[in-house]
Amino acid sequence: MFRHTDHLQFDVAPEKPDPVYARKLQELIGGAYGEMTVTMQYLFQGWNCRMKGKYKDLIMDIATEEIGHVEMIATMVARLLEGAPATESTKNASMDPVVAAVMGGMDPQQAIVSGGGPNLADSNGVPWNGRFIVASGNLLADFRANVAAEAQGRVQTARLWHMTDDPGVKAMLKFNLARDTYHQNMWLAAIEELQADGLEGVVAPNDLFDEEYEEHASTLWHLSDGTESDKGRWAHGTAPDGRHENKFLADPQPLGNVQSGPPPDPKLYATYDGGLGEPSNAALGTEKGVMGNIKETLDPNAG
Amino acid sequence: MFRHTDHLQFDVAPEKPDPVYARKLQELIGGAYGEMTVTMQYLFQGWNCRMKGKYKDLIMDIATEEIGHVEMIATMVARLLEGAPATESTKNASMDPVVAAVMGGMDPQQAIVSGGGPNLADSNGVPWNGRFIVASGNLLADFRANVAAEAQGRVQTARLWHMTDDPGVKAMLKFNLARDTYHQNMWLAAIEELQADGLEGVVAPNDLFDEEYEEHASTLWHLSDGTESDKGRWAHGTAPDGRHENKFLADPQPLGNVQSGPPPDPKLYATYDGGLGEPSNAALGTEKGVMGNIKETLDPNAG
Amino acid sequence: MFRHTDHLQFDVAPEKPDPVYARKLQELIGGAYGEMTVTMQYLFQGWNCRMKGKYKDLIMDIATEEIGHVEMIATMVARLLEGAPATESTKNASMDPVVAAVMGGMDPQQAIVSGGGPNLADSNGVPWNGRFIVASGNLLADFRANVAAEAQGRVQTARLWHMTDDPGVKAMLKFNLARDTYHQNMWLAAIEELQADGLEGVVAPNDLFDEEYEEHASTLWHLSDGTESDKGRWAHGTAPDGRHENKFLADPQPLGNVQSGPPPDPKLYATYDGGLGEPSNAALGTEKGVMGNIKETLDPNAG
Amino acid sequence: MFRHTDHLQFDVAPEKPDPVYARKLQELIGGAYGEMTVTMQYLFQGWNCRMKGKYKDLIMDIATEEIGHVEMIATMVARLLEGAPATESTKNASMDPVVAAVMGGMDPQQAIVSGGGPNLADSNGVPWNGRFIVASGNLLADFRANVAAEAQGRVQTARLWHMTDDPGVKAMLKFNLARDTYHQNMWLAAIEELQADGLEGVVAPNDLFDEEYEEHASTLWHLSDGTESDKGRWAHGTAPDGRHENKFLADPQPLGNVQSGPPPDPKLYATYDGGLGEPSNAALGTEKGVMGNIKETLDPNAG
Amino acid sequence: MFRHTDHLQFDVAPEKPDPVYARKLQELIGGAYGEMTVTMQYLFQGWNCRMKGKYKDLIMDIATEEIGHVEMIATMVARLLEGAPATESTKNASMDPVVAAVMGGMDPQQAIVSGGGPNLADSNGVPWNGRFIVASGNLLADFRANVAAEAQGRVQTARLWHMTDDPGVKAMLKFNLARDTYHQNMWLAAIEELQADGLEGVVAPNDLFDEEYEEHASTLWHLSDGTESDKGRWAHGTAPDGRHENKFLADPQPLGNVQSGPPPDPKLYATYDGGLGEPSNAALGTEKGVMGNIKETLDPNAG
Amino acid sequence: MFRHTDHLQFDVAPEKPDPVYARKLQELIGGAYGEMTVTMQYLFQGWNCRMKGKYKDLIMDIATEEIGHVEMIATMVARLLEGAPATESTKNASMDPVVAAVMGGMDPQQAIVSGGGPNLADSNGVPWNGRFIVASGNLLADFRANVAAEAQGRVQTARLWHMTDDPGVKAMLKFNLARDTYHQNMWLAAIEELQADGLEGVVAPNDLFDEEYEEHASTLWHLSDGTESDKGRWAHGTAPDGRHENKFLADPQPLGNVQSGPPPDPKLYATYDGGLGEPSNAALGTEKGVMGNIKETLDPNAG
Repeated sequence: MFRHTDHLQFDVAPEKPDPVYARKLQELIGGAYGEMTVTMQYLFQGWNCRMKGKYKDLIMDIATEEIGHVEMIATMVARLLEGAPATESTKNASMDPVVAAVMGGMDPQQAIVSGGGPNLADSNGVPWNGRFIVASGNLLADFRANVAAEAQGRVQTARLWHMTDDPGVKAMLKFNLARDTYHQNMWLAAIEELQADGLEGVVAPNDLFDEEYEEHASTLWHLSDGTESDKGRWAHGTAPDGRHENKFLADPQPLGNVQSGPPPDPKLYATYDGGLGEPSNAALGTEKGVMGNIKETLDPNAG
Repeated sequence: MFRHTDHLQFDVAPEKPDPVYARKLQELIGGAYGEMTVTMQYLFQGWNCRMKGKYKDLIMDIATEEIGHVEMIATMVARLLEGAPATESTKNASMDPVVAAVMGGMDPQQAIVSGGGPNLADSNGVPWNGRFIVASGNLLADFRANVAAEAQGRVQTARLWHMTDDPGVKAMLKFNLARDTYHQNMWLAAIEELQADGLEGVVAPNDLFDEEYEEHASTLWHLSDGTESDKGRWAHGTAPDGRHENKFLADPQPLGNVQSGPPPDPKLYATYDGGLGEPSNAALGTEKGVMGNIKETLDPNAG
Repeated sequence: MFRHTDHLQFDVAPEKPDPVYARKLQELIGGAYGEMTVTMQYLFQGWNCRMKGKYKDLIMDIATEEIGHVEMIATMVARLLEGAPATESTKNASMDPVVAAVMGGMDPQQAIVSGGGPNLADSNGVPWNGRFIVASGNLLADFRANVAAEAQGRVQTARLWHMTDDPGVKAMLKFNLARDTYHQNMWLAAIEELQADGLEGVVAPNDLFDEEYEEHASTLWHLSDGTESDKGRWAHGTAPDGRHENKFLADPQPLGNVQSGPPPDPKLYATYDGGLGEPSNAALGTEKGVMGNIKETLDPNAG
Repeated sequence: MFRHTDHLQFDVAPEKPDPVYARKLQELIGGAYGEMTVTMQYLFQGWNCRMKGKYKDLIMDIATEEIGHVEMIATMVARLLEGAPATESTKNASMDPVVAAVMGGMDPQQAIVSGGGPNLADSNGVPWNGRFIVASGNLLADFRANVAAEAQGRVQTARLWHMTDDPGVKAMLKFNLARDTYHQNMWLAAIEELQADGLEGVVAPNDLFDEEYEEHASTLWHLSDGTESDKGRWAHGTAPDGRHENKFLADPQPLGNVQSGPPPDPKLYATYDGGLGEPSNAALGTEKGVMGNIKETLDPNAG
Repeated sequence: MFRHTDHLQFDVAPEKPDPVYARKLQELIGGAYGEMTVTMQYLFQGWNCRMKGKYKDLIMDIATEEIGHVEMIATMVARLLEGAPATESTKNASMDPVVAAVMGGMDPQQAIVSGGGPNLADSNGVPWNGRFIVASGNLLADFRANVAAEAQGRVQTARLWHMTDDPGVKAMLKFNLARDTYHQNMWLAAIEELQADGLEGVVAPNDLFDEEYEEHASTLWHLSDGTESDKGRWAHGTAPDGRHENKFLADPQPLGNVQSGPPPDPKLYATYDGGLGEPSNAALGTEKGVMGNIKETLDPNAG
Repeated sequence: MFRHTDHLQFDVAPEKPDPVYARKLQELIGGAYGEMTVTMQYLFQGWNCRMKGKYKDLIMDIATEEIGHVEMIATMVARLLEGAPATESTKNASMDPVVAAVMGGMDPQQAIVSGGGPNLADSNGVPWNGRFIVASGNLLADFRANVAAEAQGRVQTARLWHMTDDPGVKAMLKFNLARDTYHQNMWLAAIEELQADGLEGVVAPNDLFDEEYEEHASTLWHLSDGTESDKGRWAHGTAPDGRHENKFLADPQPLGNVQSGPPPDPKLYATYDGGLGEPSNAALGTEKGVMGNIKETLDPNAG
């Protein structure tokens, strides 16, 4: 269960409205790596965490913080939109080219749909969606996604930091940049801790190493004609997992047969000249198990 | 420019068709972490790479390999669908509960739309889309996303490995698992190399550390009531970047004012009692620059 | 079955083209509360209505009217785009800042994709989709959605009314505003009629009142720290359904246990320390019913 | 800013796992009218509310409650998935038709993607997205959308209540049903209060009544051939707003001209026989305002 | 403006309900090539048609027919769902494997969301969206898209025809198949007529043949290693437009330079070693036109 | 398996950057008819082709070429963005109306998300998705979709050709236009070849002509009031398939009964007055087949 205080985690006070920047800030709300993504990603990871204790507690602390970040940026967007020329007609705007340009650079839905507030969408107005999050239950794989998300988020925030000179906006972004720094360090530390605790290894998931084809677990296939892909440590020496010796496959040849689909079901109307013969039956009908055996016993002519 | 050989990178030969599994394999084609995602993610990263040499060459080698993985799995899906009871009527299927169950577990679009082949969609039939990829140009941030994608991909592949006992399918997955192992190691090595080359640091992007609020770059805000989030190395000791000392904020208080939007433009019809006063004008009209000065000179009465 | 007359329901004659406004009008075509939504929402409600007579006839009258509204606004968009500087080069546009600004404010797809006509998308170019409609079959719930849709639609139309001073555009919007007024009144009247006819009550659906936990059907949980949420009639007095007395829960405590997932299936690779024990089997295998009994009889060793 | 307690708002303890039902419950998480929608809808309405006091406080109380509802149902889904036959092969499942049927009825992504947990998607696996919410700033329009959302939500919950006989699941749904009852009553009361406070009227927005064409604000256009749409109070008597007398237009004729697009820009390649003449220029270039006048003065030959 | 009659264009009377088939039929409602697509595609083409007369009249006739097809199939879906075991619990269903299998094969949203009716979605439950339609204004390009849509539609209908043995459903599909036959013939005839009327040619658009590089307008680049792509009439002889002689390029070499991005803006944090130099300025600032000249005159130091 | 050379298929060298045009070019990358669509459409058609030989080889040649087209345009976008005023603040931009206008016309995600490179999205920033492609296995239906896609693609390219005067951009477009010309001719030739080889006919699929209702396979239903739809060859004479005589149905009457849904399941809460009686059971339980017979034998009282 959650509780809310009306106070923002950090202050949000632009010196002046700026409707063009209000559109850009949408990226930090509803972009693939915006605050909405980390909020929902961490909430679902926390709810899906199968161990009590420090990892679950950490995830829920950060998840709860992130809801407040959506709140901060949503509030900033609304304040940047104050007094925007949203209800000017094109004719009026054409009297002043700067106003006309501002109108062109605004997100029309912030006015028409939200009445001067933020949307749950990115800087091109495309809505946020639930496929942006990852919560696989495997904490190594998920924490890597978290590091990646915080890194993309800080890169975007740094870009946006250069796109304004409003001291109030910059103050909020300084807070966000700092949190993104901490969160990158924090998830990196959490990965170290997972490995130190023996819960996960270097490769996710930490299993099936005997089953996979070992000879394909350490080779770089050279398939583009750039000449320097063998110059990095990925092509020689020991791999980060300490288990494989990297190799470079300079002229790789395909290991498989010629690609082809099977003969088609004629009722599905694939164009077909019969060259591949008749389709087999799917296997399922032939592995009858107990139930199939009953059926066969009772009606030997059935299917 | 690309060239294609008809031979598959690795062999794709199921022992028997299995239409239920053919639906599940869609996740590796068009899921958020399927082969389509890594293909397009690496292609766009490679095309967007701003340095000639080993990094760009590496990315293009792997990107080119991944197109071939889409090819392999798409071919496997088609072969698993051979002879599927796709064109059975419900009435016929109800004669045999196993056939009925198989029909229920199939992806209907593999038959109706693709005629017995794969879709560019995930295991629930939701189409793949371009927001699944990340290619920010910042190689540290992007390689982290790559490690994360390969980790999620190997986790999903390992799960799918348990969901079949067909030796031909398992053989292909053994190859895929091995490649996912190598690709995780490889991107981890590439991150080390980026840092060794002095191109990037630990935190992405490697900048604005003096501008961000340093006191917020190392503290865990304790906002959920679990009691163990201070037990990990994220809450004390030196952070992975070697630059910050982690701290735990046990009872954090909000630093901002009360959340509120600004007074609204009356033409946008927000419900309003006037309590916040009149909206300001957006700042832009008042910072006229050269053009504004001309206008003012010529027509001192203009807005 | 439908028939069409080439005459528009109402006149659509802008005095002058205005390509910037043509983009904004897209919101009324393909926005979440645009004409496309009410068209398809009412058509599916009508087709899904399970009673012959006045309700179904009303819905079909309005649904049929709304197709004509898509037609009107689509036509207006095309006329507003006449002569737009869509095929100007950036270089030419940069000769005149007003033309440059207009180009920036246009929807590029109206030119590149539709050749100077409307898209089936909103004012940010995001396509309309079928999840925007609701047709649950429960007329009380659906008519409330209809009132809501017409209210949002009239709010957006009113906002757009202020964004133009073209008398021809304003004339069409005056018609639309009037229809939105009628349609709000109409659906409100239809809700009254449903209740007067005894088909539905105040709460949808009009059932399960004895099954739901009555003590939770009338309390406001105070979970944010604003101090005035107990000042409205939702916190005291009789509820609109005449059945409940409203109450205010000033310091609500959670009623549930600690949130946690169950122990995971090891083949799905959730990170796990074993602390929650082994997973149970899903229930289904143990409730065999008749078929299970047969199986058990014939093969007592089967799973 | 938000805080979280690990205790759930209400207890979530299924008697037995049921993976088929776990898929259906996804509708209440990520469906268009699931808990995610009301959570984000109320959060954005609250942040966008332009008045301090009881309305904003109410919205934030309920918004904060709803995050906890996502948490409850996400937890229930994970518990229902315990021990699901997710990692059975099709061959094994075909030994027992009930297991085969369960596998067909499961959401494959709950296993492959989430490792035995919920997705942020609906019961067909389609991801939740940000266009499902509405927060226009107009509280009358928004509260109507809230009543509609709670009504759809309670209808869906009631349907799901009939689809299980697990007493633990039914207990949670009894709580949800009760909250949906209260929330419907509550938003209905809030609408009454808005009107009693004189902030809004019956029609949203409460403006432009003199501008809209009054003769079209009270007539039902009879456009489908059902014969009873004039039998309800929407076709006669006073409208709910007390301002209009309803009328029935039995044989309505279109009021507009023949639908047609304008002559096209030849560089956009619409197929065209010239019959409509040459396109006009867009108006913008001719309303030059001050800047245009300068340009004309300095270079009379310019565009 | 449209009018509606309650009578369906053709009869829709399944002999018996069949909820599994009801899910499959969704493909013909909301699939990429379902009736909704052709409805909206033809409506927007008709409204966007820039010539009065036979083409526009034809498009509007067919568009209006197609709305009625959505109506027919939506009605069929509802009738096929009559009495579906939608409100059975999983436990009950597990008593009868056929019922369990049927439940697994049903679309859960048809029950939970639509109350036993159709959704505006495809057979995997993915909502229809506005990007499925094409209405470019170029009638040759659009009529080709129409032929393609009717061909895909008839292929899917034929597949679905084999998936049922209900005589009532088959009767409706016989009507649909016939209409799809006519509509394919019809759009093919319309293309012939466009060319006979001299409005369009063979290649769309019928322009820029002198501007395009003619040597690349007739060659097949052989880039995959199959050996027979030169065996068809696309590789030799005269092209369908009568204007080009087809050629086969057996060993094509790339004509361009090495792929690379330009030097990056440092404020956007692309990883960069400086090897490509400094970025140029965008061209726009330097082509000032009249306005720029004014600025330069008044303030020679301005950027 | 694929291989890549770093050389582009054709040269991509804009004379000058142009960030406004860089946004428009996104349509050719990620639009519904952009290069990404034809790439994936042809790859899936090729992999799904059920005949070895010339058709499959042709498809794979073209598919492989198209990946290189995505590469070309993605590179062009990055080069056009060089030096774009992406990191200017709004305040700075407002000093120069042309810069302000350029900023308004740019795609903000090209800077914020991609760091000065292309997105996998269209010119409105909407991501490309997998439902844009078609690969049904029926080559006639698919090649028609290919002709249509190439026609739309060339129309859009021609429109974009008029929107720039940069000779380097125009050079690349001249190559693209030429390829689109060839590809239209090529797929038209391939359709002729399919028919000449006797693999397909004029109508797709080439089957069920005896089953469909022949009287409905040749009539134009006149449902809109334009008076000239009977003037084309679609309304008289022999159809393109040589099999039907076209007819015009001037006053068509519906052939079906009144539209209505069946009586609803009361547990789904459709509003209902009982007028349609009780719902039937779904058919499935009553057609028991062998399994049902066993059940009945063992437990005559079961369902």
